[in-house]
Amino acid sequence: MSDKPKSSGAAAANPLWGGRFAEGPAAIMEKINASVDFDRRLAQQDIRGSKAHAAMLVAQGILTADDGTAIAEGLDQIAAEITSGAFHFDTALEDVHMNIESRLKELIGEAAGRLHTARSRNDQVATDMRLWVRDTIDAVDDELKTLQAALIDQAERHAATILPGFTHLQPAQPVTFGHHLLAYVEMLGRDRGRFADARRRLNESPLGAAALAGTSFPIDRQATAAALGFDRPAANSMDAVADRDFCLEFLSSAAILAVHLSRLAEELVLWTNPAFAIVELPDSLTTGSSIMPQKRNPDAAELVRGKAGRVIGHMVAMLTVLKGLPMTYGKDMQEDKEPIFDAADTLMLVLPATSAMIAGMTADEAAMRALTRHGFLTATDLADWLVRELDLPFRDAHRVTGAIVKLAEAKGVDLKDLELGDLKAVEPRLDDRVYDALDIERAVAGRISEGGTAPTRVIEAVKAARARFLG
Amino acid sequence: MSDKPKSSGAAAANPLWGGRFAEGPAAIMEKINASVDFDRRLAQQDIRGSKAHAAMLVAQGILTADDGTAIAEGLDQIAAEITSGAFHFDTALEDVHMNIESRLKELIGEAAGRLHTARSRNDQVATDMRLWVRDTIDAVDDELKTLQAALIDQAERHAATILPGFTHLQPAQPVTFGHHLLAYVEMLGRDRGRFADARRRLNESPLGAAALAGTSFPIDRQATAAALGFDRPAANSMDAVADRDFCLEFLSSAAILAVHLSRLAEELVLWTNPAFAIVELPDSLTTGSSIMPQKRNPDAAELVRGKAGRVIGHMVAMLTVLKGLPMTYGKDMQEDKEPIFDAADTLMLVLPATSAMIAGMTADEAAMRALTRHGFLTATDLADWLVRELDLPFRDAHRVTGAIVKLAEAKGVDLKDLELGDLKAVEPRLDDRVYDALDIERAVAGRISEGGTAPTRVIEAVKAARARFLG
Amino acid sequence: MSDKPKSSGAAAANPLWGGRFAEGPAAIMEKINASVDFDRRLAQQDIRGSKAHAAMLVAQGILTADDGTAIAEGLDQIAAEITSGAFHFDTALEDVHMNIESRLKELIGEAAGRLHTARSRNDQVATDMRLWVRDTIDAVDDELKTLQAALIDQAERHAATILPGFTHLQPAQPVTFGHHLLAYVEMLGRDRGRFADARRRLNESPLGAAALAGTSFPIDRQATAAALGFDRPAANSMDAVADRDFCLEFLSSAAILAVHLSRLAEELVLWTNPAFAIVELPDSLTTGSSIMPQKRNPDAAELVRGKAGRVIGHMVAMLTVLKGLPMTYGKDMQEDKEPIFDAADTLMLVLPATSAMIAGMTADEAAMRALTRHGFLTATDLADWLVRELDLPFRDAHRVTGAIVKLAEAKGVDLKDLELGDLKAVEPRLDDRVYDALDIERAVAGRISEGGTAPTRVIEAVKAARARFLG
Amino acid sequence: MSDKPKSSGAAAANPLWGGRFAEGPAAIMEKINASVDFDRRLAQQDIRGSKAHAAMLVAQGILTADDGTAIAEGLDQIAAEITSGAFHFDTALEDVHMNIESRLKELIGEAAGRLHTARSRNDQVATDMRLWVRDTIDAVDDELKTLQAALIDQAERHAATILPGFTHLQPAQPVTFGHHLLAYVEMLGRDRGRFADARRRLNESPLGAAALAGTSFPIDRQATAAALGFDRPAANSMDAVADRDFCLEFLSSAAILAVHLSRLAEELVLWTNPAFAIVELPDSLTTGSSIMPQKRNPDAAELVRGKAGRVIGHMVAMLTVLKGLPMTYGKDMQEDKEPIFDAADTLMLVLPATSAMIAGMTADEAAMRALTRHGFLTATDLADWLVRELDLPFRDAHRVTGAIVKLAEAKGVDLKDLELGDLKAVEPRLDDRVYDALDIERAVAGRISEGGTAPTRVIEAVKAARARFLG
Repeated sequence: MSDKPKSSGAAAANPLWGGRFAEGPAAIMEKINASVDFDRRLAQQDIRGSKAHAAMLVAQGILTADDGTAIAEGLDQIAAEITSGAFHFDTALEDVHMNIESRLKELIGEAAGRLHTARSRNDQVATDMRLWVRDTIDAVDDELKTLQAALIDQAERHAATILPGFTHLQPAQPVTFGHHLLAYVEMLGRDRGRFADARRRLNESPLGAAALAGTSFPIDRQATAAALGFDRPAANSMDAVADRDFCLEFLSSAAILAVHLSRLAEELVLWTNPAFAIVELPDSLTTGSSIMPQKRNPDAAELVRGKAGRVIGHMVAMLTVLKGLPMTYGKDMQEDKEPIFDAADTLMLVLPATSAMIAGMTADEAAMRALTRHGFLTATDLADWLVRELDLPFRDAHRVTGAIVKLAEAKGVDLKDLELGDLKAVEPRLDDRVYDALDIERAVAGRISEGGTAPTRVIEAVKAARARFLG
Repeated sequence: MSDKPKSSGAAAANPLWGGRFAEGPAAIMEKINASVDFDRRLAQQDIRGSKAHAAMLVAQGILTADDGTAIAEGLDQIAAEITSGAFHFDTALEDVHMNIESRLKELIGEAAGRLHTARSRNDQVATDMRLWVRDTIDAVDDELKTLQAALIDQAERHAATILPGFTHLQPAQPVTFGHHLLAYVEMLGRDRGRFADARRRLNESPLGAAALAGTSFPIDRQATAAALGFDRPAANSMDAVADRDFCLEFLSSAAILAVHLSRLAEELVLWTNPAFAIVELPDSLTTGSSIMPQKRNPDAAELVRGKAGRVIGHMVAMLTVLKGLPMTYGKDMQEDKEPIFDAADTLMLVLPATSAMIAGMTADEAAMRALTRHGFLTATDLADWLVRELDLPFRDAHRVTGAIVKLAEAKGVDLKDLELGDLKAVEPRLDDRVYDALDIERAVAGRISEGGTAPTRVIEAVKAARARFLG
Repeated sequence: MSDKPKSSGAAAANPLWGGRFAEGPAAIMEKINASVDFDRRLAQQDIRGSKAHAAMLVAQGILTADDGTAIAEGLDQIAAEITSGAFHFDTALEDVHMNIESRLKELIGEAAGRLHTARSRNDQVATDMRLWVRDTIDAVDDELKTLQAALIDQAERHAATILPGFTHLQPAQPVTFGHHLLAYVEMLGRDRGRFADARRRLNESPLGAAALAGTSFPIDRQATAAALGFDRPAANSMDAVADRDFCLEFLSSAAILAVHLSRLAEELVLWTNPAFAIVELPDSLTTGSSIMPQKRNPDAAELVRGKAGRVIGHMVAMLTVLKGLPMTYGKDMQEDKEPIFDAADTLMLVLPATSAMIAGMTADEAAMRALTRHGFLTATDLADWLVRELDLPFRDAHRVTGAIVKLAEAKGVDLKDLELGDLKAVEPRLDDRVYDALDIERAVAGRISEGGTAPTRVIEAVKAARARFLG
Repeated sequence: MSDKPKSSGAAAANPLWGGRFAEGPAAIMEKINASVDFDRRLAQQDIRGSKAHAAMLVAQGILTADDGTAIAEGLDQIAAEITSGAFHFDTALEDVHMNIESRLKELIGEAAGRLHTARSRNDQVATDMRLWVRDTIDAVDDELKTLQAALIDQAERHAATILPGFTHLQPAQPVTFGHHLLAYVEMLGRDRGRFADARRRLNESPLGAAALAGTSFPIDRQATAAALGFDRPAANSMDAVADRDFCLEFLSSAAILAVHLSRLAEELVLWTNPAFAIVELPDSLTTGSSIMPQKRNPDAAELVRGKAGRVIGHMVAMLTVLKGLPMTYGKDMQEDKEPIFDAADTLMLVLPATSAMIAGMTADEAAMRALTRHGFLTATDLADWLVRELDLPFRDAHRVTGAIVKLAEAKGVDLKDLELGDLKAVEPRLDDRVYDALDIERAVAGRISEGGTAPTRVIEAVKAARARFLG
């Protein structure tokens, strides 16, 4: 079934925790237990954490300066080996921590065994994961900013480009394309806020919690926290090793973001359908068909839409893993890594893909305008005119307008193409000033309420968005 | 199947949007479409929003002062009718908004029809929902604070009560029960932070976005935002009506909280099992069996644990609803309400239930202490002693300790009950000072690293937690 | 928060299991524990189960004939009271079982207390739920059949109506509308198969498992199983009370069905958008807008689409509830009911709503045909012609066709409108027989492979579908 | 972020669908679009499908015999190259299909281009996936059978081993360990049934559906279906390429199974906790700690429990991907593969791990028996005795027993250790025959109702299970 190599059944007792065990782990045990195939992605974070821990041990007199130097140099060398690809990760050594420690022993001998003083894999891996998620949040924030910039640029270009605004995917009122795109800038702004909040909340150091209870060695948790850029040590050692809130919060923020992108992707799929044909994607972002030579498929948009499922799935997986787990660390928590890694990879794929589509798309202004001929988009303007000019209560104006729409529909014409006599037959007080209200450009230009779709508002909003998000 | 009454097939055209429709909605349409059975819970928020909107219309000269007064008084009367239970909600009127507007018309006549000027149900319902979720977050925060207080009180009582700390549900190291309980105080503190962030982020006013594009009436969105306690108007009208981030963020925060509570509930279930028997719940929080007369079941804890599934399910539902929805409002979004309402009800059930259990539970200190006799809980202390006193690298100390544990296991005794000769057979440099390290009390008292389990640290942590969370 | 009445804090000890308890349940306990607000929906199933159990107890000599008669008559009266609405369900009595037993005691006195011999609420509720789910599956199957019938009727009507077939929502090849609709008949057929399999698998009787271990009374489980229409008794008493597979399987079948309906609903939303405008829904199945008088929104379709989220959420909830639960019954399992009830209600809402839309929709054949002018739908036919007539390898034919499409695109014409000279410039061996391949009708009529879109095939498929699914 | 190599930005136009495209896909497009990194797992299925298709094309006279032979031999060679590891998969060629076809062209030249006649990647990949899932179901069924066999063997060994049966994790009634284990055999039997039903339902051939509409080539779908072991061709070509029910059904069956295993895993975690200590796992299936030398952690059980989250997550992902997708194939569906592959890999990991634990565990019969001393396990037997011997209604017997339990609890003794005088003080008609009912062995031996826990029943059930499941 799996492509992974069968692990050796003859594995010797694990060097890390094997003192008490009579026989080595069974092959299936090694296979289900080993995490190095995926947690190797934590290698650089693990080394940063170990260096900070070792430096603190030296400063506190728990480790000699010589041992500290040997450990730091050894770890630097390992970091370089990993970067260059020279490092060999071995499944039999179970996880990234033991792979590194084992190599450290080869490099510096017995001193390697002193690194784990006053530390456990429980606080070590919690530290690694927090650092990794923190790095990832920073990378995601950059990509979000890039996408916002692409949207804002297109919004500026199309501050006065008119197309139908939809509710229920039915034509509702005319809007500007710039205004439409800026809606996504807001969504992504909230996404950035959520990730920033998650980053702030996760930024506490588990190091020094040891297995679960803290330690009797005179360690300095403030020092390691500061060295690793954490705001403070985590306040409770049991919580520090049992907590995966930062994973859940990252995943839920990622899921919400992925849903936002799925909405934009759906719009790209609709817009490039020939019935709409109001946006064109560059060839480089569409694909063809193996059987239908004419196809230009918006695969990237479809994949962005679909991958929302994947991220939601990871969120569910992680919540389910943690449900009902008693204190403190349980091995179930090893299941935190792959969902986080894959969710992060997915975001780092769908965000640039979306940025490329937004930056690369061409809006067909004429086609957008042509679409506004369907759906009686100025009906609300007519109703509003009746309220404003004839002082009708809105509900009555709504009813009068409904009757006029019915008439236009029956005649197969747009509202502005109805004769004044037809209009008067429905509401005698109508006069020809009403045709102003039925003009699409005027309708759009008139929606100048704060946050509205009028081009003047969109220009303002573009400027404000640049200041708020790209400053 | 359903208990709900069959809707009348003979419904007349809906008074709100019926101007253009030839026939009334089919019975199944009314049944699937009507939301008043659940969105009536928004009634008070809806009235608050309408009053703010009407006051603003008057201030802007869009409505006469007389109409404004009539509307305000009418709405106040309706609010009172709803509070008293006298108000009759009618499914044929589809939703809470139309039920209220329809009653307003009965009460004040034509002026009621002017209330909807420069407004749409799209911005109206978005406003109602934000107000409702904001109110709910405040209520949840109160409950979270109450639960934290209960945990902190018990933690103070048991700052020096020793029990086994578990990893993998296997005995790991001795910890204090107070320390253990404070881990949950940290989790709940992060929960409160997440809800507070969600509250801050949702606190923008959709009012004035109208259907999706803003309006040409000279409204003042700052005024309505301020009147309703929002920090500012939402910046983009399309986003304002299409956004349900605040629902997603509420639900994801709720799901994470529910998972926290499920972990605590699992522990209560374990602790009250006779094999542990270290905590007793009051009769008032357990139940019996219809067949087994001796049972005292921790039903409340089990329900708290199980209800995590429910909240996670609602989170999934909402994410799935929004996946791939194009701009702006789609009727699918009506599916936001029931998950939110039920998730909120669930939190308002599981939080006080958990507080009652925590405040009401009795910890059996002797039984906790008895449990520490299993599992060689001071093995780490022995290893640490070897590092500290004999300068063994930790890895070697770990191996030596493993061998000693094996010996104790074979002899069926605890570590501290081994003869010094037995110890020396494994590591000749051991001397009788080691027995201090094997003493449970000393082991616990010695874990004085910041955030550690030593009673002195727990006392400090209790004080700090009161200041941070209950101040 | 909740509308539910606060339960009385002064409740006396529960009559069912209270023999050993010193104090009544706390108010929050009663509130979280009571299930009668929702499990009352099991009342008729509960009574059927009790009658079968009592009859068996009499037959086995465990109960006297007189007691058996009294119980049966009492239960019949209660069933009638429930049906008429006269029955009063009381939250203080916790659940439906105790409400019924308590009323039975009022009606027949002490004999009521003999009904629970050799039974527990654990096997009782498992029986009730299986009966309820079984009844629901039968009702869902009827609705599925109705929807299939509506689809097949429309398919027959439109066996030769041509519209673009899409992949990636891009025009791919022309298809018949009947063929398109029959795709859903297949999906729904598999749904029916899944529910039927679930029904078969759940149809084992838990009765007689008692609390978990069986009983020492000489009961006859075959008799109760047969009386209730079960195929056999469940084979293992612990499994019988701990198993909720039938809930999971019902919910997963429901979720897959809901996703199918969401796909069809999405198509209805697209088809009724004015850019497509190929299908019209009757007024009775669309709604208007409170602000935009011209709107005709496909709310029912949107709700059908959105409610997929709800059903998926319930599936997730139930899986999460059961994850990690040890044997046997845990109170967490009480969380099975609301997801099941709501999922069932949802299906019984979306299925008839979809049937109504399918039966009531009008396909605009001319508009469908007009849409086929976009997207070079016969490109595959051209490629196939090159293979067939010129013996080009398909890959070469694909490339040649691609070049011709490019030419047509540049000229802004359809393939069939290109001059022969233009065609020959790309591939000199082309001759005017090729124009046959470019004809939409011929293209459709030619796809006569088994299961293909040709009208002749569709007619056959309609007939076959009637036989397979409606027979 | 990702370890995957950056794709070349200079990629030439894709050879498969590039005829019409001006420029090659952008690097990000290639990265998001390429699936060969995971769909290469379909290679053998793809080749089987291609061979069947080619053979049919020859039989129908669409392909020459020579071309057919060349294709078959070329494909055989490729299959061998893949098996040996010599085949080089190239990301620039997008997917497994194009990698194989491209290699085929190298091997046999132009004839390779004829293989895709009357086929599309849409029906091709649907065929590959069905074959892969079918193969996987067969492998999963084998593992399920192995696990059932291990459970049945242990059940036979422990048909008379008594331990407490729990409800609510509180001691309920004594049961036999064999009976307890057989509950899982039932669950797994239903799992096998679900997979078998899924297999039967998926076993229809999509081949010949082509892109979506069928083909005008005179193909023989019955022939390819038969050659590939399918029961019949899929009835509707559009459904054939748009359907991923078989993925959903596989995943939901997998999720239910994973939840079953999580329940068993939870029990293993509990049983090996020292407070219970009734089961021991072999060293080879537990692990140690890097800091705590005495630990023997049930990591495999914890991972089996945790991985339920992963499988549930994949189920959610797939449902979400498909929600709201219009006909027919959308690129979103490419997201079917990784969830399926990972779910399958997970099952093939957790099933053998669980089998190893069950087969390798040692039940401590004395410890099990010792646990029965807690919790008044014979209380139900006492109540039943009162019913049987004194003709008390069960409800009264329950109340009397409750009072006796209270007495025993107050005295700190088990029920059987109460003096007859004490018993009579509660219910004067009690006599010393009652002590028989209070004997654990007799209580267990007496639960001989069908499916009950009595050793005689367990022996029968073991035999029956072997016949039903292992025959």
